Amino acid sequence: MRKTRNEELDRLSIEEFKESEKTPLVLVLDNLRSMHNVGSAFRTADAFAIEKIYLCGITAQPPHREIHKTALGATDSVSWSHEKDTTTLCQQLQQEGYEVLAVEQAHQSLSLESFRPDSDKKYALVFGNEVFGVSDEVVAVVDQCLEIPQFGTKHSLNVSVSMGVVLWDLVSKLKF
Amino acid sequence: MRKTRNEELDRLSIEEFKESEKTPLVLVLDNLRSMHNVGSAFRTADAFAIEKIYLCGITAQPPHREIHKTALGATDSVSWSHEKDTTTLCQQLQQEGYEVLAVEQAHQSLSLESFRPDSDKKYALVFGNEVFGVSDEVVAVVDQCLEIPQFGTKHSLNVSVSMGVVLWDLVSKLKF
Repeated sequence: MRKTRNEELDRLSIEEFKESEKTPLVLVLDNLRSMHNVGSAFRTADAFAIEKIYLCGITAQPPHREIHKTALGATDSVSWSHEKDTTTLCQQLQQEGYEVLAVEQAHQSLSLESFRPDSDKKYALVFGNEVFGVSDEVVAVVDQCLEIPQFGTKHSLNVSVSMGVVLWDLVSKLKF
Repeated sequence: MRKTRNEELDRLSIEEFKESEKTPLVLVLDNLRSMHNVGSAFRTADAFAIEKIYLCGITAQPPHREIHKTALGATDSVSWSHEKDTTTLCQQLQQEGYEVLAVEQAHQSLSLESFRPDSDKKYALVFGNEVFGVSDEVVAVVDQCLEIPQFGTKHSLNVSVSMGVVLWDLVSKLKF
């Protein structure tokens, strides 16, 4: 076997990406403190053709050198905006017809493998702060909590890893 | 809804983890340069109860402050060893009955959503260097390349995110 060369990867240009059909998902970052995780969110959102990233509260915004280090240019392809308050945004998204799902360990959460996304719906996925998770106030307004089942000693995935896990899970169920 | 408190998470102790039944997967890290990614590998491997991590070549080994920052203690639960040469290790694992899969963009790779792991087999998953990917020499000896389909401008997920994506994909297919 041989590896695919970069020029064989069928990568979209930024213009092609902006015009391409997106996965009907938006990401909501609830007060992330690490620019590394913000950059990673952009890179993963680019890979899975996510519609938009909402950077809420203290979540850092591009352009910033530390975000660029992990985003590697994906801040130019993926749409984003900054919103002051995560709870207000979630309520607005619900009014716009989004089903809003917090990725969080919660009572009556739905385990990720059981979740069957409906291709006629659009979803907003909320990911929380590295230490505090999604805030209680946001958890109180979302439609559902999605939980990644974990079997070890920590039950605490890195938020960039959680975004990869959940986005891939939904993309694979919606696209294939 | 309310979030689950830490004491309600049913987290295993290190001793319970070591004695628990594992997912029949091992991770092979082929010359990773970032300790952040090594730490993240431990944390994700703990979450999904992976059997062992092989740290190959220049991949840093615990104990190290920078690994601990992202592993958050998972270096105590997950088994690991250091191996000098990734290719030699892959051939040894094949002799021990592992099917060795490199996660890489390659000709004739298998797209991740199409892969159906066999619960009677055991798998070794090879992840490559942040810049060079899995080395050509290793790609030449593995049984198969697994590729995460990507739809954007970069086609380059962070290796920690790729580990989360592939491990969750296989765990969800094997466990549920």
